[in-house]
Amino acid sequence: MIYNTAMADIAQFDYYIGIDIGGTRTRVGRFSKDCKLEEKEVIETIRYKKSPEFLLEEIAKKILGLKKPNSEFAIGISAPGPCDTKLGIVKNPPNLPGWGEVRVSEFFKNKFDTYVSLENDANAAAFAEYKIGSGKGYKNMVYFTLSTGIGGGIIINGKIYRGFMDSAGEFGHQIVLPNGPKCRCGSKGCLEAVSSGYAISRDAISKALVRKSGILYEIYKKNGTINASDVFLASSQGDDISWKILNKAITYMGIGISNVITVLSPECVVLGGGLTNQDYIIEEIRNFAATHVKMAPINKIKIVKSSLGDDSSLYGSVLNTVDSF
Amino acid sequence: MIYNTAMADIAQFDYYIGIDIGGTRTRVGRFSKDCKLEEKEVIETIRYKKSPEFLLEEIAKKILGLKKPNSEFAIGISAPGPCDTKLGIVKNPPNLPGWGEVRVSEFFKNKFDTYVSLENDANAAAFAEYKIGSGKGYKNMVYFTLSTGIGGGIIINGKIYRGFMDSAGEFGHQIVLPNGPKCRCGSKGCLEAVSSGYAISRDAISKALVRKSGILYEIYKKNGTINASDVFLASSQGDDISWKILNKAITYMGIGISNVITVLSPECVVLGGGLTNQDYIIEEIRNFAATHVKMAPINKIKIVKSSLGDDSSLYGSVLNTVDSF
Repeated sequence: MIYNTAMADIAQFDYYIGIDIGGTRTRVGRFSKDCKLEEKEVIETIRYKKSPEFLLEEIAKKILGLKKPNSEFAIGISAPGPCDTKLGIVKNPPNLPGWGEVRVSEFFKNKFDTYVSLENDANAAAFAEYKIGSGKGYKNMVYFTLSTGIGGGIIINGKIYRGFMDSAGEFGHQIVLPNGPKCRCGSKGCLEAVSSGYAISRDAISKALVRKSGILYEIYKKNGTINASDVFLASSQGDDISWKILNKAITYMGIGISNVITVLSPECVVLGGGLTNQDYIIEEIRNFAATHVKMAPINKIKIVKSSLGDDSSLYGSVLNTVDSF
Repeated sequence: MIYNTAMADIAQFDYYIGIDIGGTRTRVGRFSKDCKLEEKEVIETIRYKKSPEFLLEEIAKKILGLKKPNSEFAIGISAPGPCDTKLGIVKNPPNLPGWGEVRVSEFFKNKFDTYVSLENDANAAAFAEYKIGSGKGYKNMVYFTLSTGIGGGIIINGKIYRGFMDSAGEFGHQIVLPNGPKCRCGSKGCLEAVSSGYAISRDAISKALVRKSGILYEIYKKNGTINASDVFLASSQGDDISWKILNKAITYMGIGISNVITVLSPECVVLGGGLTNQDYIIEEIRNFAATHVKMAPINKIKIVKSSLGDDSSLYGSVLNTVDSF
């Protein structure tokens, strides 16, 4: 059964429920008819990591709590890819290890007997930034999520561009360092394997264990791991090794983003995800692109930070539902 | 004045004139109402390289020879980018050194008082492959021209995707080798600087001059240069240096094409340009992509050779005109 075709008139819905399933956190929100977020609940996905059914039941409970009496709502879902958006299926997402193919749209359709749509989370975030965020009004726009992993979404002529079998926009898996480190996707030298939070953390741990001294090693001894945010902090405190690790990651980020600009020449590039909390990252990427992009009008292309932050995919899940009518 | 808006009904034209301005050769053809090429003239562009006006006058003469009496025609032009397709202006194309901004649409409009459209040559070729060539029917499709330079065109949902200021699809200027050789665009390590006919020729000359012996050096002594085709020939005759040069160029070609597949996930990739005359190149690229593209459904994506060859942009110039009504 196909769940994402418009089977209903938008006018019949009094409000919307948005669900953003994330690798760490899942957000459930109630949105007004004009897509304002009214109330939000957060679930620690991590507790239900190996049991999608339990997570879906927990989400359903939150929806019951958010529901309004005597009124009709539609549901929009965003989830880590790969997704089959037509059939409403999440398919073995690398960010939700242990999940196989999960028919999320069918689950909520059966539970609430209403219109349900599913979108890849990066696509949903891209669409939200285009509709109401930093990319508002730029009909050809790309969105990068720079976080533990690196993902992307493409808006062409004001619509999500999904590509063959919903797999476009995987910006994190372009090869930027030939024969570089192995990526979780199975390839080598992908942007995600070099510039993501995961890569920064991996490199920091490896350097710390080789040197067995310095700030990074102290952090490792204390926490048993080193997060990307630790590396940023250590670098700001003058740690050379941390600076080198970040410098490499940010340079390749510049290459990956410049390459997408060269291929697509969008009017606007929106950068979201945890790594962009470091404000200078956006400035570094702007500088790199200004120097290296020669064929697209780089001085006219906006490179801006996401304005919806952690809620971009949640907003996108609902905006995408509304748009699909 | 804007030349590319539909100012006329397609029914009023009895036939079409296509013009493909190339860095080496310019083609002028007469096409039937249903876009069959009926007659073609070729001009050596190189003779008029520094004088666009003389070239345009020469094209106009060819059109007079191709014209049919008492019937109406429209003109489609393809030219090396960058172009302003709305205003019909070719803007300082690197492949036509000495040209500044040339108002080609205006020239032919004044000369023949008819509908004129202009398109970037790689976009025109992409559109032709989509309409009547190897990419026929694949609504999301990309086209690579692998030649002296490396260019590209993107078809999204059956239309040419031009991007901001007509500059999308510059696949040859993605960075594939960080800090690699300087590119003619001014950046470094671009696909074109590593894998194009120009790069193969440059590397062969440089190796020959260092070694001062071997097949490549003999060719250089004889011809004063070494073409990419010489390197392919020498490699097929067992020359190790040539094999290494080509191996590097083809590996990076694989990276560049894989990256575009990962970003856009098209249903079909059409490869054209002189380098694809070496049949094994397409096979090598298919193998590379099959191994390295993990996020797009690579086993279902067609990677095929252009079926229109040298005439792809010429066909595209006319098909684009027809499509613009």
